[in-house]
Amino acid sequence: MPLTLADCCALDARDALAPLRHEFKLPDGVIYLDGNSLGAQPKAALMRAQQVICQEWGEGLIRSWNTAGWFALPQKLGDQLAHLIGAKPGEVVVTDSTSVNLFKLLAAALRKQQAIAPHKRVIVSERRNFPTDLYMAQGLMDQLQAHGAPAYELRLMDAPEELAHALQDDVAVLMLTHVNYQTGYMIDMAEATALAHQHGALSLWDLAHSAGAVPVDLNAAQADYAVGCTYKYLNGGPGSPAFLWVHARHQDSFGQPLSGWWSHAQPFDMEPGYLPHQGISRYLCGTQPIIALSMVACGLDIFDKTSMVALREKSLALTTLFMELVQQECAGFALTLITPTDPAKRGSQVSYIHPHGFAVVQALIARGVIPDYREPGIMRFGFTPLYTRFEEVWHATAILKDILQSGSWDQPKFHQRDVVT
Amino acid sequence: MPLTLADCCALDARDALAPLRHEFKLPDGVIYLDGNSLGAQPKAALMRAQQVICQEWGEGLIRSWNTAGWFALPQKLGDQLAHLIGAKPGEVVVTDSTSVNLFKLLAAALRKQQAIAPHKRVIVSERRNFPTDLYMAQGLMDQLQAHGAPAYELRLMDAPEELAHALQDDVAVLMLTHVNYQTGYMIDMAEATALAHQHGALSLWDLAHSAGAVPVDLNAAQADYAVGCTYKYLNGGPGSPAFLWVHARHQDSFGQPLSGWWSHAQPFDMEPGYLPHQGISRYLCGTQPIIALSMVACGLDIFDKTSMVALREKSLALTTLFMELVQQECAGFALTLITPTDPAKRGSQVSYIHPHGFAVVQALIARGVIPDYREPGIMRFGFTPLYTRFEEVWHATAILKDILQSGSWDQPKFHQRDVVT
Repeated sequence: MPLTLADCCALDARDALAPLRHEFKLPDGVIYLDGNSLGAQPKAALMRAQQVICQEWGEGLIRSWNTAGWFALPQKLGDQLAHLIGAKPGEVVVTDSTSVNLFKLLAAALRKQQAIAPHKRVIVSERRNFPTDLYMAQGLMDQLQAHGAPAYELRLMDAPEELAHALQDDVAVLMLTHVNYQTGYMIDMAEATALAHQHGALSLWDLAHSAGAVPVDLNAAQADYAVGCTYKYLNGGPGSPAFLWVHARHQDSFGQPLSGWWSHAQPFDMEPGYLPHQGISRYLCGTQPIIALSMVACGLDIFDKTSMVALREKSLALTTLFMELVQQECAGFALTLITPTDPAKRGSQVSYIHPHGFAVVQALIARGVIPDYREPGIMRFGFTPLYTRFEEVWHATAILKDILQSGSWDQPKFHQRDVVT
Repeated sequence: MPLTLADCCALDARDALAPLRHEFKLPDGVIYLDGNSLGAQPKAALMRAQQVICQEWGEGLIRSWNTAGWFALPQKLGDQLAHLIGAKPGEVVVTDSTSVNLFKLLAAALRKQQAIAPHKRVIVSERRNFPTDLYMAQGLMDQLQAHGAPAYELRLMDAPEELAHALQDDVAVLMLTHVNYQTGYMIDMAEATALAHQHGALSLWDLAHSAGAVPVDLNAAQADYAVGCTYKYLNGGPGSPAFLWVHARHQDSFGQPLSGWWSHAQPFDMEPGYLPHQGISRYLCGTQPIIALSMVACGLDIFDKTSMVALREKSLALTTLFMELVQQECAGFALTLITPTDPAKRGSQVSYIHPHGFAVVQALIARGVIPDYREPGIMRFGFTPLYTRFEEVWHATAILKDILQSGSWDQPKFHQRDVVT
């Protein structure tokens, strides 16, 4: 018996997470399926911004570094975020961008290997990893080589199934994104980390599409390093500062090269010589954008009202429903599913390739359904269990079907390179 | 004839810049002399934040990367800021922190020297440079050396007068802060740069205490690289993103190691291989904190209503008045002036050492006068010509005199290391 709109509405009616949608401002007439790129706005964000701007900045001025707790925000937010990724308090800071944090941790990992196993000259990653991760690795490798270090090799797998083959004893670091940004494929972190450790490699995880989307347990997986993003599933605001995690066993060994004053043991002694802070604060660098940083708490506060178990259950229900509905309604329209149907292997998105993917996405947006587009030809549909309704999955599919059926997509108004998603 | 309160009020009465104070929210009962640490809040900031949060983020969601111009903000703000530092449009971006930007540019400079003059292994700076600059240099040097590069030396001058002695032919980079954060001493940028160039060294300037405080002309000085801060005299908000400038002759030569996707020639092609953008965009890294970044324009807009010539004139009048009043009112109270009396050699602050400097600063704050304190023993008084009144200089001096005269300062409530300034 085919799925109906009534079935979807029934799912909403018994959805225990449904009230959480009211924590967000979502525009009328829009079905937002791009929380995997930019999360929606928590209603609390405006009041928090007013407080930071008018009271803390305007009235408190410089005093607010102490009285409003600005100085400790990276650690405080890190502690609030920790439970979402299987980390303990004192293991996470919210700071800088994901790219910058990746550089810090990859540099720390390479330095450690340089000291104990200098013959390991390979960084393993995926060719379809989010490009900035690969670019940061290349920037670091190039810099070292330009100054006379023996070359590193960036060994790129075409698919995560090649892991056992790629992980040889020459590997210094396994640098992976846990949930792939294109396909939504989720790698088994514990398994991959164990394999890396068998070969003496350190594991560095990018949790951009994991944090707040799927349960993550960094400590249980015995992972070594991780970075991630707060502006996607964590709803921290556009470009909000990223996070980083370092396993307690590595925190105090070696440093990271972006050793700014916020990572100093005694920053206000103003000594000319660098002395690293103990613990996770060593991975900070410079002064943080407090207004943007403050917004991150508004997103995290909402997670305190539920659990990743409940969110994962709804997330899988949403992605499963969408795949089933697309199968039911849009068969024969040249859509190729590239997301694993096995729930254990996917994040909180569903991606299809279509020969006119970019144009179809533009047509969807024009009709009030917002997914996003990624080269080559990929339409990404992100499902945020905090605010996506099952009924919306129905309507989004119906509109997608209508567009595909009529072939009525316009010529794209923007070139795809202009679409930041 | 001694200066009087009436003299100060007369200066305010004929101050053409006086109306600009109304662009700022300043708390009642406070004389704010710490704009050199955190600038005051432009009144426009709240409305801008509301717009970014409610309209651009809340309503526009992911579309705002294009429709609200988020993606081009680093370059747009850089272009708006450029005239304040003698830069041209296309030479400046607002992004990341000052520390991170310094790392990018020092790495770019060292890499250039490595290619053309690898025997140059010295970075010259000042022992009293702002510590994070020295820490970032140390982090970079240590990283390279740990991976087998020949060592670099950080050669620290005890005073800027040692420049001619420190600048030998082994110097790769002269890395200086234009206006010293402790003393307010301003180095002659053109002269120092010319000296550096004579020895084949590149010059890298930190403009944290210069931008918006004193006229700067990077191109006239033929400087090579510069970074700076937007949250001090530019009033961009607490920890607001920093800026960087690269002379056009260097922009496309070599890269910087923090080569994230925002620095890629075609970021949305999502290619695994890094290809640097041409021009100043090559010095970007990752996604920026848009809410904090957006506030920067509110501060810069106010500069569009005046000129650095007018601001410099008032700044010197303020600092001169303060030094004269302290001389007149507070002689004999163990204050040691460490700021140059020569106007050509100082920025927009006046610093005194006092044996109980920290306690005196706390007593001033308790009385509503907010300067700040810096180790060792330094009381810094910052004068922001956009909003500081001459009358406030009088009252601040009177309160300082009263405190010094009575010896009535309390024991400090916070340890100095807690005071971020």
